Amino acid sequence: MRHNLGVMAPSSEEHRWLGALADALGEAWTVDRVEAFADDELEVIAAAPPLRRALSEFPNLRLIQSLWAGVEVILRDPGLRTDIPLARMKDPQMETSMALSVLAHVLAFHLHHDQYRRRQNGSEWSQIYGVSPGERTVTILGLGAMGRAAAVALQDAGFGVAAMVRTPRLDDEIDVFGPDQLDERLADTDVLVNVLPVTEETRDLVDGALLSKLPPGSGFVNVARGVHVVDDDLLAALDSGRLRHAFLDVFRVEPLPEDHRFWTHPRVTITPHMAAPTFPSSGSVFVAEQLERLEQGQPLEHLVDHAAGY
Amino acid sequence: MRHNLGVMAPSSEEHRWLGALADALGEAWTVDRVEAFADDELEVIAAAPPLRRALSEFPNLRLIQSLWAGVEVILRDPGLRTDIPLARMKDPQMETSMALSVLAHVLAFHLHHDQYRRRQNGSEWSQIYGVSPGERTVTILGLGAMGRAAAVALQDAGFGVAAMVRTPRLDDEIDVFGPDQLDERLADTDVLVNVLPVTEETRDLVDGALLSKLPPGSGFVNVARGVHVVDDDLLAALDSGRLRHAFLDVFRVEPLPEDHRFWTHPRVTITPHMAAPTFPSSGSVFVAEQLERLEQGQPLEHLVDHAAGY
Repeated sequence: MRHNLGVMAPSSEEHRWLGALADALGEAWTVDRVEAFADDELEVIAAAPPLRRALSEFPNLRLIQSLWAGVEVILRDPGLRTDIPLARMKDPQMETSMALSVLAHVLAFHLHHDQYRRRQNGSEWSQIYGVSPGERTVTILGLGAMGRAAAVALQDAGFGVAAMVRTPRLDDEIDVFGPDQLDERLADTDVLVNVLPVTEETRDLVDGALLSKLPPGSGFVNVARGVHVVDDDLLAALDSGRLRHAFLDVFRVEPLPEDHRFWTHPRVTITPHMAAPTFPSSGSVFVAEQLERLEQGQPLEHLVDHAAGY
Repeated sequence: MRHNLGVMAPSSEEHRWLGALADALGEAWTVDRVEAFADDELEVIAAAPPLRRALSEFPNLRLIQSLWAGVEVILRDPGLRTDIPLARMKDPQMETSMALSVLAHVLAFHLHHDQYRRRQNGSEWSQIYGVSPGERTVTILGLGAMGRAAAVALQDAGFGVAAMVRTPRLDDEIDVFGPDQLDERLADTDVLVNVLPVTEETRDLVDGALLSKLPPGSGFVNVARGVHVVDDDLLAALDSGRLRHAFLDVFRVEPLPEDHRFWTHPRVTITPHMAAPTFPSSGSVFVAEQLERLEQGQPLEHLVDHAAGY
């Protein structure tokens, strides 16, 4: 008997996923847009926001597989049933991309490329003598799969790395600390990197109070979500010199509105939510493995804890 | 008996070296600017160009120790005696800096940060879907200590790496090839990185003919010397789209003249000869070890072959 998987994603992404999933899933699964099926025929929906249908409208779902690592939009669906498993995407390629994106931004900051870029605008030739990577501390907020990949890459490049986690446990790789130590750790931070999930506790976390605890001239990298950051407070910190530069991949509203001050701020580098794109070719392999587990009655991977929010 | 070491470097650098060398060399050596000694009192000169005195004016030199890795300016001194050892600087910190600088530029290219920067100037939000690092080939011209450090860092980040060397020998770490294979290798290159020494063979090597062999949309990183590159040909390759972006740290004339077209070209990133600065603190340790070898009559390290030019 064939099973039915419906894809619901923005049109540009949907097209790329339909082909990759059909290739990876083989004969046992029919893969198409959700609209190609009757609502009660669908056993699995593979979804990326914004969602054009409420997930509660599909009565026979056995799994909701997010195509993104972040599931905060799906969790906001008011009719979402907590008895249907919801799984985050896991894509080793996504972790590699995240690690390299964070490394690229931290290296640009470390090597003063942001400052040289501003000097280039004024045809100004002047050297800035810096320090070695071992004299820099990068503080990472969050240490999920992607945060860890970034932390290890930074450590391998010679930077000092510390990561804030909700509940610190002994960690062989990374120096971890809990939220109660954040203030003192911020005071010793050269670059702050946000890789947190979105929860009630982390929303608006990067505000004026937090930024004021960083040493003057620090760097900030946001590759998590825009709602972690209070935009006006970030702009104030850039204008005051508290922050030397911000590398922003995510925003409260995406696409970032044309008139937002981030676009033209000389101390802001913008990338369009591309720090860790899912590659349909490798992401579909995870989905295929997940469906195999579903069929065999084995435990699913990367399940979301509805209460925790990630 | 105390020995005398004279420092001859541009004023901004000289100051940093005098203190670091005095600290590293200890009681046996008097360290000062060359002008503080009579010409015939000096046994060693530690030099960084431009040189304000001809080295031939010092009759009792036993060693000329360059403070830079590149010695092409010192070799142009017409009175330079080939019987006095001339040594290049070796500074592990410099190799680390070079590796990280090249990695930063290649990552920026790989992750399309150059393109996003141009889009940011137009407040344009649009994604570019790329490939994985393993699908990119970085071709390195030259594989000295700094080229190798860069090659290993790129390889560790997942890029495919090949390096051109004058005489290919079996290499356990890096895929090496000789100049006879350059044309075919260029055709398979995503980013070309120049780390060559300056010799008669390498001067003007990066010209229109070489650049025309790269695939359209390639990247170029120059962290060696400006005289390797024919500026007008590089600009033409950028304007035609043969090159997507050039990351330039070195120039035929430094400081880069204010009216040079590189400054304002949207496809050029300029850094002011800072890809691999020597750190006086670590460089002085090498000089101290070198002087110890000189005193003990042991073979000196990093000696320049006057005929080869490096």
